[in-house]
Parts: sequence; C-alpha cells; structure tokens
Amino acid sequence: MSLQGASIVGLDCVRGDGPEAFGTNPSTGEQMQPAYAAVTIELTNEAVAKAAAAFPVYRKLSGALRGGFLRAIAAKIEAAGDALAERGPLETGLPEGRFRMETGRTCNQLRLFATIIEDGSWVDARIDAAQPDRQPIPKPDVRSMLQPIGPVAVFCASNFPLAFSVAGGDTASALAAGCPVVVKAHHSHPGVAEMVGLAVQAAAKETGMPDGVFSMLYGSGRTVGAALVQHPDIRAVGFTGSHAGGRALMDLAAARPQPIPVYAEMGSLNPVFVLPGAMTDRGESIAEGLSGSVTLGAGQFCTCPGMVVAASNDATEQFTDQLALRQREASPAVMLNTSIHEAYQKGTAALDQHLGVEGIASASTQNSGCQGDPALYITKAEDFIGDEALAAEVFGPSTLLVTHNTREQLLQLAAQLEGHLTATVHATDADLAEYGDLLDILETKVGRLVINGYPTGVEVCHAMVHGGPYPATSDGRSTSVGTQAIFRFARALAYQGYPDAILPDALKNDNPLGIWRMVDGERAK
Amino acid sequence: MSLQGASIVGLDCVRGDGPEAFGTNPSTGEQMQPAYAAVTIELTNEAVAKAAAAFPVYRKLSGALRGGFLRAIAAKIEAAGDALAERGPLETGLPEGRFRMETGRTCNQLRLFATIIEDGSWVDARIDAAQPDRQPIPKPDVRSMLQPIGPVAVFCASNFPLAFSVAGGDTASALAAGCPVVVKAHHSHPGVAEMVGLAVQAAAKETGMPDGVFSMLYGSGRTVGAALVQHPDIRAVGFTGSHAGGRALMDLAAARPQPIPVYAEMGSLNPVFVLPGAMTDRGESIAEGLSGSVTLGAGQFCTCPGMVVAASNDATEQFTDQLALRQREASPAVMLNTSIHEAYQKGTAALDQHLGVEGIASASTQNSGCQGDPALYITKAEDFIGDEALAAEVFGPSTLLVTHNTREQLLQLAAQLEGHLTATVHATDADLAEYGDLLDILETKVGRLVINGYPTGVEVCHAMVHGGPYPATSDGRSTSVGTQAIFRFARALAYQGYPDAILPDALKNDNPLGIWRMVDGERAK
Repeated sequence: MSLQGASIVGLDCVRGDGPEAFGTNPSTGEQMQPAYAAVTIELTNEAVAKAAAAFPVYRKLSGALRGGFLRAIAAKIEAAGDALAERGPLETGLPEGRFRMETGRTCNQLRLFATIIEDGSWVDARIDAAQPDRQPIPKPDVRSMLQPIGPVAVFCASNFPLAFSVAGGDTASALAAGCPVVVKAHHSHPGVAEMVGLAVQAAAKETGMPDGVFSMLYGSGRTVGAALVQHPDIRAVGFTGSHAGGRALMDLAAARPQPIPVYAEMGSLNPVFVLPGAMTDRGESIAEGLSGSVTLGAGQFCTCPGMVVAASNDATEQFTDQLALRQREASPAVMLNTSIHEAYQKGTAALDQHLGVEGIASASTQNSGCQGDPALYITKAEDFIGDEALAAEVFGPSTLLVTHNTREQLLQLAAQLEGHLTATVHATDADLAEYGDLLDILETKVGRLVINGYPTGVEVCHAMVHGGPYPATSDGRSTSVGTQAIFRFARALAYQGYPDAILPDALKNDNPLGIWRMVDGERAK
Repeated sequence: MSLQGASIVGLDCVRGDGPEAFGTNPSTGEQMQPAYAAVTIELTNEAVAKAAAAFPVYRKLSGALRGGFLRAIAAKIEAAGDALAERGPLETGLPEGRFRMETGRTCNQLRLFATIIEDGSWVDARIDAAQPDRQPIPKPDVRSMLQPIGPVAVFCASNFPLAFSVAGGDTASALAAGCPVVVKAHHSHPGVAEMVGLAVQAAAKETGMPDGVFSMLYGSGRTVGAALVQHPDIRAVGFTGSHAGGRALMDLAAARPQPIPVYAEMGSLNPVFVLPGAMTDRGESIAEGLSGSVTLGAGQFCTCPGMVVAASNDATEQFTDQLALRQREASPAVMLNTSIHEAYQKGTAALDQHLGVEGIASASTQNSGCQGDPALYITKAEDFIGDEALAAEVFGPSTLLVTHNTREQLLQLAAQLEGHLTATVHATDADLAEYGDLLDILETKVGRLVINGYPTGVEVCHAMVHGGPYPATSDGRSTSVGTQAIFRFARALAYQGYPDAILPDALKNDNPLGIWRMVDGERAK
C-alpha cells in the first residue's frame, strides 16, 4: 500500500498545507515517508460541515445499513492486515504479533457493534399507551427511543494504534449510534492511521454512506484538535490519552457557548490489593502474573497495574523479592515514542530520588533505543497517603508496591484513592469474607473490579465497563470499551401523540423490527 | 403545622444564623412568619459530610427498603396536604386546587420511582459468562450493573413548589438511585419547603434510613448553592430554573478539580407549528387550546408554548384574531414572585417596543398585585431569524406568533432553532405527509415532539423525556421527568471474576431478585 500523506475529508483525500510531520521509528529515531502535513482551519471546518450535512441522512439509516458499513470497515481493515503489520511495528515499536492481534480485536469490535445495531434493541424503545378516559385528565400516548446526538470528534490514542484510534472503539460506537465521526489522527502512527482511514473511506463508498460520515485529519491537538472541540457542529468528543490533554479538552468543551460532553479516558494506577491469605498461599504465582501484567506491551496499557498494596510481613517480603526478580528478568521493550519514553525515564527517576521510596528494581537511565526498562519501587502506606506525588501515574513497565501495617491503614489508603479505571483484589475465600469493607470502598472508586485476575486485557463484551470516576475519566458514568459505549453518543427522544405511520420503526405498534421494548412498564418483544 | 424556620441537617433541625428571609405573598407583598435564616458554610459542610457518611450505607440498601422510604415520604406529604394547600397559595399565588393536584403528582412520582426500584430491573444487569477454554486467551466472567454515583445537590424550582422542589423529581430520582440528597430550598416558597422537608425527615426516621440521607438548607444560590456545587463530596447537581442560574452552576461544576455533571433544566420556547391543513381545518380550536396552554399556571410552566409558527395566509389571520381574543379574555393571574413578574413585564415591554413585532394583545404595564397579563405578539419569520433577542424566553402567559411566507423559510427557521424542551406540530395527515422534512429537523432540536396536542402537562411515565439539547438543558442526554431520570444519578460498574457469593444480588447466578438481565447478549429473566 503506497501512502500519500493526505487527510481524509469525507469522500475526498486532501493534503494539508500546514506544518509537516513524519512517522518516526522509536528504536532508531529514523523518519519515515511520506510527510503528513497538518490541515488548515478551513479544511477542519470543511470536514465538520460535511459531517453535519451527513448527519440527517446517516442517522435515519436502518441498523442493518449502518451495520453493513461497520462490517465493510472491518473487512477493509483485515484486507490491509499485512500492510498494517509491516508499517505498524516500525512506527510504534510494538511487535508484529501485537498488530495482528489488535487488528483482530478492532475488527471484532466493529462487528460486535454491527450486531448490536442490526439487532436494534439497544435503542431502549418505550411505549406508554394513551388512556383517553383517565380522570382528571386524559393520558397521552408517549413513546421514546435513543437517537444519535450528532457529529463526534475522536482523538486517537498512541497506545492502541488500531483498537483505540481511527476505527477503534470511539469511532465504532459513534458510527454505530448514528453519529458521523471526524478523527484527529495521532502523530505517533500516521501511516497506520492513513491505512485505516482509507479503509473506512473505502467502506463508506462501497456501502453508499453519505459524504462526510467519516473524515480523518492530521494536525496538532492545540490547533486541529482544539478547533474540532470548539466547533459548534461537533456534539461530543471521544479521547484517550494523558490527563493534561484530556482535561484541556474538557475545559474547552465546558467553556463553549453550547457545552458538549467529552469522554476522556486519562489513565489510572489500577491498584492491585494482595490480601494476606492470598499472599501466603500463592505470592509467587501472583508475582509472576503481576509482572506479566505490568510489563505487557511495555506497560503502555491504560490498565497497567501501577500500584500494588500488601500487608507488611514476611510473605510480602518474599513476594517483593520474587516480583523484583521477575521485573529485573523481564526484557526492556521499545516504547511508543520518545516523549512517552522520556516521561517514563523522568517518572522512574523521580521515584528513585524520592526519600520515602526504595528502588527494588530500578529502571535503567540509559536512553538508547527508546527502551522501557521494567522497574519495581516500594514505599510505606503512611508515606503514600501523605504524598500526592506518589499517586501520579508513571506510564510504562513500572509498579509501586505500598505496604501497610494495619487493617485501618489499608482501609484509609483505599478511602483516599482517587478514581481509577480498575481495582484488583487477590484473595482467598477467607480474605473475601474478612475484607468486605475494602471491596465496598473500592466499588465507589473504579469502573471495574477484578478478583484474582489482572486488570490488563479488557474484554470487549456487553458487561465491560472501561471507565471510572475522575480523574481516571472525564465522566465516570460511561464506558469506552464494550457495547455500552454506544450510549455515550445517544440521547432519548420522546414522541407524543404520533400517528403510527410516521413513528420510527422501533416505536411502531406492531414492532416491525422485532426488538425488545418496554410497553407500559413491562419488557416485551 | 407550626413552622419553625429551621434548616434540616440529616435527622436534626438547625436554624441558620445567616441573613433572614421570609415567605412573601406575591399578591399583597405581605411577609409571612417565620424567618428563614440562611445557613453558614459550616452547616452546609456538615450536611454534605452527613450525606457522604450516609452514602455507603444507603447505596447498599435493597430496592425494597429504599422504595419503602419513598413511599413513606409520599404518605407524609399527603398527610400534610391540607397545610400545604393552605400555606402554598399564600407563598406562591398558585390556587389551592393546583396545590392539591401537585401534591398528588409529587406523591405519584415518588411511588412510581418506588415501583421501579422495588422491581429492580432498572440496574441494567449484564452477565457475560467466562469461557476458560477460549483461544488464544480465556474469556473472563464479566458482569455489570448500575450503581449510584454519590451525594446529589438539588436546587428547587420556584414554579413547581412540590413536584420539582424539596421532594420533587430530582430528589425522588436521586434517592431512588441510591444517592443521598442535599436540597437547597427556594426562597419563593420557604414554608412549603419546610413542610415537605420535615415530611422527608420524618419518613427517613420512620423507615430507619441513615442520618444524612436527606438534608435541606435555606440560603442564597450564590453562597449556599455555590458551596454545595463546589463541595468535593457532591457528585451531581439537579437544577430547574433560569438560564443564567443554570449556566452559572454548570461553569462552577466544570471548573472543579473533579468536575461533576450538572442536570440543569433552564427553560425553552417550546415552539408550536400549525401547518396549513390543520390551520384551515381547525384553526379556531387550536387557538383555544393554545391560549389555554399559554396561560396555564400564569404561563409559568417550562413547557409553556412561547412561540407559534404558521404560514402567512387568511386562515392564519383568522387564527390570530381568535388567539388574540382568547388571550385578551383570559384572566390575569398572580405570578410566583415579584422578580418573575418584573421579568415578565420587562420581556413583554421589550416586545411591545420592538420594531419588527406587533403587539396583538399586549400585557398590561400596571404593576399591582403581581398579575401576569396574557399577551400575544406577532412577527415575521425573516425578522425572527435575524434577531436573537426574539428567541429569548419571556416567562409568563405570553406567546409570539411567527409567520412565514414560504416552505423554505419555515425549514430555515426550524433549522436555526436552538435546543428546546419540546416542539409541537398541529397537522392533518396530508400535512404530515408533506412536512416530513420539518419533523426530521425538529427531531434534532428537542427532547419531546408532540403531534396535535399541547406541550404543557408533562406525563410522569416510562417514556417521558423532559430534556432537550442546550440551552434548554445543560445536558440533552437525559430527562428530569419520568422514570428514565433515575439514570442521571447512576453509573455502570463491572465485576470481573467475582465469586457468586459476594456479587450484588442483581448479578448472582440464580437471579434472586427475579429481574430482567442481559445474559451473553440476550434478554432473560
């Protein structure tokens, strides 16, 4: 596949004429062709104008037609699988196998959303029948269903160049809901972005989607990204990235004349609690599993366990040694780009220099090849509780073990946690019976609780919640992974006194779509 | 019932020691005893601290127990019915019959939410079974359900002293979801607020709810209100009132270190479109119905139709005369308070003086007795489209008729509408067939569409949506009326690899609550 370096504006490909950027091989520093020039504000506006024009057409398409579009995107991405697996590792340092797997995940995700909208029940159709004779006033016929909210701006993630980028979860869920999407590509994998963008564009052409249902723009967050978030025709934003970046978008969106929702996933420490019984019974196997989770993908998953909590005792000392060994023996891996690598070096160096922290397995400070060196730090609960700096995420294959002396200290530590994506508890049945209060606290802190597992590996399914209270995300009421993500881009609309003939099919009397509905308060199909 | 003028802080009653305020009879200007002193910041913090302490207990109570609390509130409010019907009209100018009716509505609403949580299916329980043998990696057991988000601050509305005040829709839906509530009482009906607040407090005691599940504070929006919205333990805000007030709360909430959702319902013009066939067939009856809707409750409903759109022709001229006659003949009614009355006088005076507007039935400028005089203004679509000032809500029994010359002008006007709570279309079957494009546009502008009815009279039911895009509300994704309001105060939480014994009942294998769930993507009970 020959790359052109063009942005995608609806059914057209247009080279920007702003500053140029290149894909860069993180392990060699080598720049890759072609140049990707940033788009101008005019082109940004054109992409949004096309999205706004496409919206009234696209939102009215049946679930079957929109589903066909998503399936066609998946097929085109699969067809580009070899090219992606060739270019991707060069741009990102991620191994080819990861690209093959993430291609599969991305396509499965698109097809899962297709299934949901082809089924149609997701719109939560509700019918309350009229009671013309009700006293003192008649009851009207009222029906409601979810409708798409309008054009969505999607910011790509560097750490999931496929599954959370151009045609990743945010795009898939927005398109599924009936919202056109304008993507801001990530500078860290511009070639992969172009390949996937062209796949989406080709799928849109093939399935007869309206011009503007999808665009993808190159440019910086401060210019193109900010312009998208501030554009009056953009109605929601999806973002995965840093806290600073996410909060900046939240603030821009909240300050608009018409504020809009920003769904930002901004990272998390994903604390792992190893309770005493589990530590005694299987500390060594937990050390092994944990090191695998911490170092997976060079620790560049949102769900990487950046914090481990355990009682200060002999078993934990053994566990610490085993975990340290695993971390030292784990191979350094190329990180996504130099700025992520530099941040990792800086974060681990700060821990090394912190008076309350001991570096059990310190990351190497050598700076060659963008390598992230697995590390392990240890601190005491009283130091952790008193020092906000220790709660900062160090993005990479490092984790901080926090030991506590008392049960009260454990609960205090849990109670003081900010919002995180996940919390994990390793426990025996006896531990679970004894530490119900810890689980109760953790329920209010995260989007997903894991018992005797590891937080990495976020299953794309109906029950998944990849979210959690701020600052893990901008809005703890929703998820960016799994089919419930479709609700982020929808709102309920009520129809009162509508003749059956002009109601949307989902709300018609004879239920032509055969979907689950709530009729006078009862579920019915 | 003897009023004490105290705020309610959990199970205690505490007089504030800030500035005093009194209920005022709007028609006489007479102050009513007792004095209601504003609470201090310390007392505000205490109420929130109690709410935060109550949350872990309250959120774990079964739907049956929380439902019992809501039913007890309804019973206590009904027991205070005579006292409310006596004090209420004096404070608000609303007739006794309205108070009786609104008491019924408020209690029905509480009981409807009780029904929902007693049933339990609202939590959207989802179960995706494990597949330990799946290749290349096992599929974990993942389950999710909605959980309450935490303490909620509720701002009372002046125009619904019962149904959207102390124990109104926001409070009922938040308590139903499992969130403690801190209410800021409205200065326009402090006595009614006290009666209802005491009813809620008594119900909490009677049903053994934790101290802090409910508090109610007197004080201004700028002090007590702002302190509530900025308090770190408040997790969401419900508000019904002016655009300026709502936007101020949105901005405060967005600027917090941890931003929180604000559900503000800020008013709307509720445009009514009378299409040509309907105008010819039954213009006179529409004029009658419309005048009734405009003047209902002195025009002080959020859904009051403040704008009517019709083609410029002979039938519309007749309709205009009939509507003008109805408006002139309608009795002026006492408005809620002097500031609402003054704003109405100012708003109608501005229309009277507007060069592009003709006052067909002008509001009286006399200022005695806080009377809102029904009015009718007329303007041309080209003037309306070009002048933002004409789109400003005039809260009261007035409406603005906008006439258009062409179909294109009608569609242009619709396309340029901001977000509104409702839009209504009067149409024959032939009109509906011809104006599908108008309905399509309106679907993107409002929360509820009404055919051949009137927007006032918001049915409390499962399908109701009382919301709509900004600026009608802060967040067009939700509703403040009807059972879907419960979703505003909940978030999904996932449980991965949990042993059955410690799962919430809603997610246990054998479905002990007998609720509807989604199991591996299929609805099941």
